[in-house]
Amino acid sequence: MNVLIVFAHPESESLNGSLKELAVDVLNDERHQVQVSDLYAMNWKAVLDKDDFPERMDKELFNPIAEQLNAVENDNIALDIKREMDKVLWADVIIFQFPIWWSNFPALLKGGIDRVFYNGFAFNVVEMKLYNEGLLKCKKGMLSFTTGASRELYTDKGPHGDIEVLVKYFNHLLFEFVGMDATYFAIFGPGEMSEEERENELDRFEEIIRNLP
Amino acid sequence: MNVLIVFAHPESESLNGSLKELAVDVLNDERHQVQVSDLYAMNWKAVLDKDDFPERMDKELFNPIAEQLNAVENDNIALDIKREMDKVLWADVIIFQFPIWWSNFPALLKGGIDRVFYNGFAFNVVEMKLYNEGLLKCKKGMLSFTTGASRELYTDKGPHGDIEVLVKYFNHLLFEFVGMDATYFAIFGPGEMSEEERENELDRFEEIIRNLP
Repeated sequence: MNVLIVFAHPESESLNGSLKELAVDVLNDERHQVQVSDLYAMNWKAVLDKDDFPERMDKELFNPIAEQLNAVENDNIALDIKREMDKVLWADVIIFQFPIWWSNFPALLKGGIDRVFYNGFAFNVVEMKLYNEGLLKCKKGMLSFTTGASRELYTDKGPHGDIEVLVKYFNHLLFEFVGMDATYFAIFGPGEMSEEERENELDRFEEIIRNLP
Repeated sequence: MNVLIVFAHPESESLNGSLKELAVDVLNDERHQVQVSDLYAMNWKAVLDKDDFPERMDKELFNPIAEQLNAVENDNIALDIKREMDKVLWADVIIFQFPIWWSNFPALLKGGIDRVFYNGFAFNVVEMKLYNEGLLKCKKGMLSFTTGASRELYTDKGPHGDIEVLVKYFNHLLFEFVGMDATYFAIFGPGEMSEEERENELDRFEEIIRNLP
């Protein structure tokens, strides 16, 4: 099985970094193929802008979604983006490893989606290739994240609201939108944990990764 | 009244650009003070990273949330961030004008939040200054966005799910988290609209802006 891990934390020695390393080790141990896109280490360009489209269809008005489709159809995709698309096509499973910031991805990883999941590549709004017809169907996606707050704060009655609802939307409008099966793994409030509790969480993650997909 | 408009669309001639311009005109007309942060034009740095903290408290392990608090307490905030913080403090109302990409901000605007709404500035997790006690209380925030899809697709039974739930979480974990009152304005599927329908939407926006807050 081919697994792509997209990692986005500014500190490689963080818990997120440990989770990424653990996943690589376990997947290698299980004789899967693994590629890692470490977006901070790669100095990934986060921002979708006109520079991504040197050969624009419409040189007057910049419409990203139309230019994406045009770039795919004419094989005019910027090289850094093409490289990541190739990894996505290669992968059976894609894992995003990140800290939740403001209920979503860090900007750098958000820019991974904005700049790689092109119209015409991951979905197609013209031909309505979305959800069950999404262009990345048969692949599996996992959001693997840490939160600042503890689990108790992420309930229906808690201050942050129900994490299940939040993640349902997150996964639905991301992985499911492009046809993928979606799941998640969360570690809540690791900053407050004892060393033993952290080890238990790492063990829990290892078990899930060992039994992918 | 002081209004800060944070604008993030790569095309100034887009509908989002028109909405931003309209808001500026109407607010000036109503004799409010207006500042605009046009993140694409400013070439805003989207990515929170170690470079934001030249005088780190912990030079070994980079913990963004701890370094933010330290930077605020020691007045060591990077200049581009400080400038935006000053606008936030100045503002009574903050409007984010953007296209929804992947059910959230474009990466560039996500990086506006990641890099400006610091621990110790917008909230404080040590002193539990969150929600009703958030450090930006008494301010008002509006998410003003366009969507690719039409309104009918954003219902409980529709493919994308209920936009109200999505926006509730979005606003709750952003503006409400830092103590602000939150609202939103959405234009659904402008790409499919007739010129008249677009004009009606602009009129609807103008009315709301004219009656802020």
